Amino acid sequence: MAHTSSDLLPFADRLDAAVARVGNACLVGLDPHLDALPEEFARARDASAPRSERARALADFLVSLIDVAANRVAAVKPQSAFFEVFGADGAAAWERVVGAAHDAGLLVIGDVKRGDIDSTARAYARAFLEGPDGQGGDATSRADGRSGPRRMLCDAITVNPLLGPGSIQPFIEACRAAGTGIYVLVRTSNKDSALFQEHGDPPLFERIADAVASAGRELIGQSGLSSVGAVIGATQPRELAMLRARMPATPFLLPGYGAQGAGAKEIAAGFLPGGRGALVNSSRGISFAYKQPEYRGLHWKDASKRALDAMIREVNAVVPRT
Amino acid sequence: MAHTSSDLLPFADRLDAAVARVGNACLVGLDPHLDALPEEFARARDASAPRSERARALADFLVSLIDVAANRVAAVKPQSAFFEVFGADGAAAWERVVGAAHDAGLLVIGDVKRGDIDSTARAYARAFLEGPDGQGGDATSRADGRSGPRRMLCDAITVNPLLGPGSIQPFIEACRAAGTGIYVLVRTSNKDSALFQEHGDPPLFERIADAVASAGRELIGQSGLSSVGAVIGATQPRELAMLRARMPATPFLLPGYGAQGAGAKEIAAGFLPGGRGALVNSSRGISFAYKQPEYRGLHWKDASKRALDAMIREVNAVVPRT
Repeated sequence: MAHTSSDLLPFADRLDAAVARVGNACLVGLDPHLDALPEEFARARDASAPRSERARALADFLVSLIDVAANRVAAVKPQSAFFEVFGADGAAAWERVVGAAHDAGLLVIGDVKRGDIDSTARAYARAFLEGPDGQGGDATSRADGRSGPRRMLCDAITVNPLLGPGSIQPFIEACRAAGTGIYVLVRTSNKDSALFQEHGDPPLFERIADAVASAGRELIGQSGLSSVGAVIGATQPRELAMLRARMPATPFLLPGYGAQGAGAKEIAAGFLPGGRGALVNSSRGISFAYKQPEYRGLHWKDASKRALDAMIREVNAVVPRT
Repeated sequence: MAHTSSDLLPFADRLDAAVARVGNACLVGLDPHLDALPEEFARARDASAPRSERARALADFLVSLIDVAANRVAAVKPQSAFFEVFGADGAAAWERVVGAAHDAGLLVIGDVKRGDIDSTARAYARAFLEGPDGQGGDATSRADGRSGPRRMLCDAITVNPLLGPGSIQPFIEACRAAGTGIYVLVRTSNKDSALFQEHGDPPLFERIADAVASAGRELIGQSGLSSVGAVIGATQPRELAMLRARMPATPFLLPGYGAQGAGAKEIAAGFLPGGRGALVNSSRGISFAYKQPEYRGLHWKDASKRALDAMIREVNAVVPRT
């Protein structure tokens, strides 16, 4: 089905163009674990400091990390949990970071894993994807997200589908109205994910995959890709290839590159021909690269730059872009 | 396993005592749908008003609704999505509402449906259940939640288990440290929940139920109840009775009374003998009672009081307390 709002591009198309522009499919996760922040942001973990100052130090770090990501990658993925730790001050820090990423020309994928039904799901969709009154604010501000209410909203968020395929629909409606996107959790790579996600025959995650692919057909853009994506933490290349075949128009978000173990080779099967249709995320591997032996002695920011440049080379080596 | 922190009571015991004190198992959901707010809080839906003022109007309504709940019921359940609509201003409103509920002697069950793994789940647990530095703030403030950092934290939250039983563990650790609780989504009552939740044989929700009951054995209090509860939107009394038998020490949160359709009779099977071990939630049926024909002409607050008193009578009639 075609988009009804002609004044803004669908998320899928904006992302596809941004990836083509930077020439790689890497995604920088913004997961500010307090314990791992470089010393200059230690205020964030000082239990005796006012909460507002702690949240500010956390945002200061991420705004600086956004410098590293800008013009290197297409998008960043802030993890809301680490902001929520600081309550209302953390929510203000979130908005500052999302705004800074947009200012730097980056798309923002909010890793919020929300999920609920009916009017509650609609409220979550408004919170992150289209603003309190829908549709992402005024039309002039929507297209690039650089100004107006759109600036502090996400371009896409992660969504938890446990409540059923219908629970995804309010998010999809928001995506259509505001030119935004979602990545639905289909498969996670944590050790004990199997008990629920592989339950049944066929396993539950295949059923979720089919529902996500089906729902996404409503929102396929000019790029041929849908604005309804999937988080696929496949543990084996064969499984990843099976899901890729099953969801031919679905953008994948592939977590776990670097610190969580997967290498570039393991993720190749998640891509469409030409190196399109997937993002590879690394969080700690980039943001806390300064802790790795190979970058010892470097300023944390230089360590992050080198780690990200290395990741880009590795991913591009196994996923040739054409 | 016994609680390790002797200076605070487990959530399960605090809730059990509070329910005994008020003499009913009703829970008031705080779901401030903008469209349904009484006219005096219309500022909340005024798209031209500053976001901070809109969020304040929303909180004003809920603080007033807390007056209705205070001394009538044991707990309230704010729904975070409706706050998140207003971003950082909504987060400030959330903290004001949670604090006001604690001031009024109510327990707070945050309906946030968070779920993630490892350090991210730990961050969510800290955000809502134990504060940024763990354990709910200073010891003196923890027991009653009336002062200190504990005041703005929840006594329990809802948790989404899709990522696996291990994803619940960081929340359970927070519950043990801070005397707080969780309600894990086991079964939801929305129309299309079946596709995923009934997938497999036995259906997925039974497997989740077993995992929740098993995890909860770690946190059984003096009351004989666990601080690891379950959200059970059972659609049939037989299913509810089956789950009750399967999870003998698990507190249930039964949504959907009133506006969503279920009556008092349908929920009786969710209780343990003596009318213990479950809370029955009504949200719109109480907060927006003024919209119901039978309460026409009343001030919204009087309508809510009458609706809540009627619900208490109905629930107590089918779930005799001994």
